[in-house]
Amino acid sequence: MPTTSKAAKGAAPLVPGSTIGILGGGQLGRMLATAAARLGLKCHIYSDHRGPAFDVAATTTLGQFDDLPAIRAFARSVDVVTYEFENVPVAAAAAAAEHAPVRPGAKALEVAQDRVVEKSFISALGIPVAPFAAVDDDADLAAALATLGTPAILKTRRLGYDGKGQARIADAGNASWALDAIGRAPAILEGLVPFQYEVSVLVVRGIDGQCAFYDVPLNRHKAGILDTSSVPSPLPREHVAAAEAIAARIAEALGYVGLLAVEMFYLGRDAGNPLAVNEIAPRVHNSGHWTIDACAVSQFENHIRAVAGWPLGQTERHSDAVMTNLIGDDYHRWPQLAASRPSACCLHLYGKNEARAGRKMGHITTLAPRKT
Amino acid sequence: MPTTSKAAKGAAPLVPGSTIGILGGGQLGRMLATAAARLGLKCHIYSDHRGPAFDVAATTTLGQFDDLPAIRAFARSVDVVTYEFENVPVAAAAAAAEHAPVRPGAKALEVAQDRVVEKSFISALGIPVAPFAAVDDDADLAAALATLGTPAILKTRRLGYDGKGQARIADAGNASWALDAIGRAPAILEGLVPFQYEVSVLVVRGIDGQCAFYDVPLNRHKAGILDTSSVPSPLPREHVAAAEAIAARIAEALGYVGLLAVEMFYLGRDAGNPLAVNEIAPRVHNSGHWTIDACAVSQFENHIRAVAGWPLGQTERHSDAVMTNLIGDDYHRWPQLAASRPSACCLHLYGKNEARAGRKMGHITTLAPRKT
Repeated sequence: MPTTSKAAKGAAPLVPGSTIGILGGGQLGRMLATAAARLGLKCHIYSDHRGPAFDVAATTTLGQFDDLPAIRAFARSVDVVTYEFENVPVAAAAAAAEHAPVRPGAKALEVAQDRVVEKSFISALGIPVAPFAAVDDDADLAAALATLGTPAILKTRRLGYDGKGQARIADAGNASWALDAIGRAPAILEGLVPFQYEVSVLVVRGIDGQCAFYDVPLNRHKAGILDTSSVPSPLPREHVAAAEAIAARIAEALGYVGLLAVEMFYLGRDAGNPLAVNEIAPRVHNSGHWTIDACAVSQFENHIRAVAGWPLGQTERHSDAVMTNLIGDDYHRWPQLAASRPSACCLHLYGKNEARAGRKMGHITTLAPRKT
Repeated sequence: MPTTSKAAKGAAPLVPGSTIGILGGGQLGRMLATAAARLGLKCHIYSDHRGPAFDVAATTTLGQFDDLPAIRAFARSVDVVTYEFENVPVAAAAAAAEHAPVRPGAKALEVAQDRVVEKSFISALGIPVAPFAAVDDDADLAAALATLGTPAILKTRRLGYDGKGQARIADAGNASWALDAIGRAPAILEGLVPFQYEVSVLVVRGIDGQCAFYDVPLNRHKAGILDTSSVPSPLPREHVAAAEAIAARIAEALGYVGLLAVEMFYLGRDAGNPLAVNEIAPRVHNSGHWTIDACAVSQFENHIRAVAGWPLGQTERHSDAVMTNLIGDDYHRWPQLAASRPSACCLHLYGKNEARAGRKMGHITTLAPRKT
């Protein structure tokens, strides 16, 4: 693409041969890059370390996320910028936006990076969330516990993921240990919601504002980390429609372009609010990895289509699917996983060097003929 | 992989993080590289021009295929060597084999590069082929036409593909124009077989000699170039088994490791030999592109698994599929193809710069629920 002005870059669908800039170089960037390649689009990865995405990109840049001149140079060299993790500094997204469209934009980052901002934003849309209160010190914590009761979970406002930076409080008395446990960072206390199970809505919003939805997966966790996502989920049909409407409302309020994941608790038919939003991820999401193998167009390709200004592809699943993460030492089972196929088994390894505890090393998706 | 000796390299399945060297940088190399990435394997592409595979590889080398020192250096830097086009010089494969296993080996190249050698090799296995004769000059041609009759097709022995280097002879008298038309290169005259349709067998043979087969596609051509491949084909079940047995026999005779495509004519139930082999391709094949979207494990991944010494993945299709090539100007329909989805439509573009006539620019695969 010979165009360099921001306006020209945003005007029309990117033609094949254009370059998508991706902030972040992890497995999500890797799967985005191979999806972009399917469409004849190149990728340029920018990250502060050589991650899994570096092996499948046309161009790579090693740089810090607070090196704004480097971020600007990166943005000038590409046709659109997207990101594959939600902790990209907002200043980096803003610097990139001086030179190329950034999709989804900085607003989604601002909202998703701070749990208090996120829950306030969603609440303000009239969407149920778990009860919460901002906590900066022991006095805040005592007051919040008095209001929300126990058990409750204290989480850092920023930078927590996969269960890190969290403390579960069973006893309201003498709870300041919990603030110590999360390093006395600015925090949020969340009340527990009596949910039956967790689902996530994977919504992709096109540049024209149209939304498309993947089937809602049922998510199960182990030790605070996603273990399996499976479709179909048991979520009743009318609540699927409600969940999709919630996700679409959030995407619209963010002016979102791309794939947005909205994690929700299902409280059951008899609850006043059957659904409550847990959190959002302004990016492709682990609970959507099954779409690679069970859909004609994956979450990764649809994210690329959206940020490239293309029409969205079909989101319907052709097969039932169970995605299971390979975490830490699970990875060492790869020879068995490669050999065993009780059913159609799709093995995905992310090319990471070292199988540290809690590290996502790959996933498997087993397919079965679609029943419903 | 720190090992450099040939023996050590060939001893065990390559661990994730190992590097597959691919001779050739076209769309087949591109799809092989993204399949390898799924398994946590890196690719190093060697080609004489910057082709579509260069955008998705961890490492790339621009070099001539007759630059044997460069080929040797390439082979030393990888853990196994494979190729994505059948006209890799045998000398290059032999030079690479001094430093790394080459899978499939040089023998498959020798056989597939010369139509007379290929047909003689297959015939010698007791497998029916179209009647043929080697033609070096006008006298040979006259004798061959007297034996085979007309119509017949004169083809160059080497380097023809997609209908290039061919002349159809309707009249046996005064046929030396045909030798002129193909540049008086060493040639083969092939008698026409009264076939009902063409199919191809996509067999993958593992390092342990086990074979697995994809469903046999029905192939239709336009202007000498593959237009569509579709599964299921109308080939009767007992002839599917016969076709698979033929492909396995050829793979075994070649000591083959990887994906082998065997194009066959189907002459009908009442023919003495219902099947005749047209030609073989010692590589992943255009008629197997539908496996990316309609199978848990594609032809590309299974080729990578085989050459990496891994167990083969499942070859069963989960969906019915029709693959249609995008040739030359077809490519300019990409905006419509991206938008239209009469059924689940998977769009693949190869990232080539220029849509020249006859050039394979991409393909689409439409999926439908599996009926049989």
